[in-house]
Order: sequence, then structure tokens, then C-alpha cells
Amino acid sequence: MKLDKRSNIPLYSQLKDLILERIASDIYPAGQQIPSELTLCEELTLSRPTVRQAIAELVSEGVLVIQKGKGTFVAAEPERLEIRNFNPFTYSLLASKSIADIEFSTVEKLKNSEALASSLGLPYLESQAGFWAMTWIIRNRGLEVGQCRSLIPVSLFPDFGDQIKSSKTMLDILANKYAYLPSKGQCQLAVRPASNDEAALLDVTRRSPILFADCRLASRSEHLCEIVHVIWRPDRVALNLEAGRS
Amino acid sequence: MKLDKRSNIPLYSQLKDLILERIASDIYPAGQQIPSELTLCEELTLSRPTVRQAIAELVSEGVLVIQKGKGTFVAAEPERLEIRNFNPFTYSLLASKSIADIEFSTVEKLKNSEALASSLGLPYLESQAGFWAMTWIIRNRGLEVGQCRSLIPVSLFPDFGDQIKSSKTMLDILANKYAYLPSKGQCQLAVRPASNDEAALLDVTRRSPILFADCRLASRSEHLCEIVHVIWRPDRVALNLEAGRS
Repeated sequence: MKLDKRSNIPLYSQLKDLILERIASDIYPAGQQIPSELTLCEELTLSRPTVRQAIAELVSEGVLVIQKGKGTFVAAEPERLEIRNFNPFTYSLLASKSIADIEFSTVEKLKNSEALASSLGLPYLESQAGFWAMTWIIRNRGLEVGQCRSLIPVSLFPDFGDQIKSSKTMLDILANKYAYLPSKGQCQLAVRPASNDEAALLDVTRRSPILFADCRLASRSEHLCEIVHVIWRPDRVALNLEAGRS
Repeated sequence: MKLDKRSNIPLYSQLKDLILERIASDIYPAGQQIPSELTLCEELTLSRPTVRQAIAELVSEGVLVIQKGKGTFVAAEPERLEIRNFNPFTYSLLASKSIADIEFSTVEKLKNSEALASSLGLPYLESQAGFWAMTWIIRNRGLEVGQCRSLIPVSLFPDFGDQIKSSKTMLDILANKYAYLPSKGQCQLAVRPASNDEAALLDVTRRSPILFADCRLASRSEHLCEIVHVIWRPDRVALNLEAGRS
């Protein structure tokens, strides 16, 4: 790519594309310093304000970062949490062998109501006894990667939340409950704008995109036994799926 | 939520939050008209410029849309293409029974090179014979949802691209090749900023986030037989995963 000084496209914008191209082709590798403003001016015979504007915009877009007193660097690729063999059971509490490592942010009992059923996309049944709702933060190297919220019907697990609060083991909690453990799962994955609360939680700007999963797990007896809602910062996670076929 | 006229948070910003809250709680449902500027001014005793700024920002954020001569509406939820039972084989050509419905944008033979191997994350082998590369657009109701690119090693399928160009059926193409069909697959799903080409292709702004999948398929004999790269517009797609467990 060459700069075209007769083009209608502003020079700073052409320079941005040139820098992006050099990053993409590893001429300016991730995490490394790029040439100084002056060097770029000389190499490409550009004015200082042109170079400065291109760099300023790439900094505001997160492509370049300025390290004070050192220079301008290509932003390092974000460290992503690789979730191996992601599937609808990955964040299920009922499918976990142990939950001793999970630090719950909240454990609460949600009363059955039309509003709750509707927010979960379920038909409202007066006989429903509500849900236990457990939330926890997903971290990687100390950084918030996302948040998980598991909902478990009180009708199937009347004491689930209380048992978690009293630090019972999963083995105790699930004793005699094996018929209600998840055996089938569905999960919807998509991207949507963060709500204000989610943006604050994940430290992203309001309405910026977040990746989410809405998982529904059913027991062998076809009872809905757990709903898991996960939200992730899209720059901090990669989901790996695995499958075989005959 | 109430507006606090003594707060440090500008009133237009509080009003934005109030409108977002009303949208979230379906007081202003998706696709429906919101009250006029004047009505909001009166209801909340706000000045016209305050209301106008809040609405203008929500319009520029895509939350509200102005329909000329009619009024201001909550943006309708985007129609998403639901991809049922998404897995690493979903967009595989080798795993397709028929490819008669696919309109390929390009079918080309990529020569073996260090650059190609490195871009595919593969070790460079001089003996490699390169890849057939097929691209096509994924559409839903006439709109571009994404793009798929399948790479198939020439060493395993020497005539694949030519056979596709001459409209051979999959049955013919795969005759005697069953040992090389995909039987295991891995897929990485994540979100990253669109490149300029991708942004143009999917009609999104430069560097806006896109959802992508990088799928690698191997035959029963452990040969890498297909690589599938998919990019999607994150507002136009939802992936559904399914799984059972014993």
C-alpha cells in the first residue's frame, strides 16, 4: 500500500490504513514500538500534524498505546481466557463435581412471579415455587472476564441456596437427587449491547458489545433443572468447541 | 428511577438512562413510538434542549430511530439468523451432503508458502501442496449475515476447486475419498475488531466487533482435511448449541 497525495481520502486516513496494514502483516508486531512521529514524517514525506492525527486516532481506537517517556506501541493482543470444550454444561452448578472453588457474589431465592417467568422466557405457572439464583464472577489472572448466573428451581432443590451458604459439598447436596441432574442442554450464544449494570460490572463502556450465553439444562425426566446465564467481555474470552461425528 | 436536578450527572444523561430503563422494562416496547419531545419536557419538567440532546445521543447509539413525519421509535430488535445445533462441522463443505445451494463468491487455489502456513497457524512444510479456498456469503432474508471461507488441502483433494467450478455433486467429488472426510472437529469462537475488508463486506463501521469462528476438521486418520473461517455480524446471528451427557 502506498500513500496517494492526490487522492480525495485525507492523508491522515491513508496513513492510518497503512499503519493498520503494517500491524496486520507483522511489520509492526503486537506489543512492539512503532517508529517515532519524526521517522514516519521522513519516511513518507508527511507533515507532523498529519502523522500526529493518524496516531491520535489509532490510540483512541485502542490499536496503539502510548507509554509515557518510551514511545508509541502496538497494543498487545488481549490475553483471552480459553474455555476448553465449551458446551451448555460448562458453567452448570448441578453438573459440577465440586463448587468449593466458586466465590459466589450472591445467593438468593427469587419468588415465583409473572415477571420472573417472563424474564426467563418461561410460561407462568402458579404452582412454580421460584428459583434459587447464584451469581459469581469469572476471572482470569485477576481480571474480570465475565459473570455467571445460575437459576435452579426451588421445586426440585428446595434447600439448594441454604446448602450452598452452609458450604455443603455437591455430593451432599445432590444425594438422592440424581434423577434431577442435567442430562440434556441447549445454549444460545450471541452478542448484544451491555446494560448499564453489566457495563459497570465488566468495566466496559455503556452499550458496548458483550458476548452472552443463555443455557437451559433438562434432566433425563425432561424437567428444566437449571438455567445458566453467562456474560463475557468479548475481548477477554475465546470459546473452544469440540465435536466428533460418525 | 427519578431525575435528580441537583446531581452532578448532566440532566440529559440522566434522561438517557431513564429512557433506557423504560425500554428495558417494556414501558417503551421495541419497535414502538416513544412520547414526543414536548410530552417528555412536560412529564419530567425538562427543557427542550435537554430532551433533544438525550434523544439525539440515543439515536446515534442506535437505541432510538427517527421515522420522518411519524416520530421517534424504539429500535426494533434485529432479526437474527438462528443457527441450530452449531458445531465445528456446521459450515464444512466436506461434511455437506449437497453444496448445490451455495453461491460461491470465489474458488481459488492458494500456493503453498510460509506466509500461508503462518496465516493458518500451521507449521510450514515444503511438501504441502497448498489449499483450495472457497468463500461464500451467509444471508438471511436478503441481508448479509456473515462470510464463510473453507480451505481444503490440495494434497487430499487435488481437483476439489475444479470439480466445484464444473458443478459436480458432492457424491461425485467425495467418491473414494471417504477416508479423508471430517470425523473430529474443533472450533474457536470469539469476538475481534473487523478489518477494513471485513467491515466493507458486512456493512459495519471500521474496527467494530465481529463474531468469528476458526474451525479445524480432521479425518479419522488424523489428517487435517478442512479449515473453516466464519465471520458474522454480531447483531444478525445467534448460535444455538446442543449437547447431551451421560
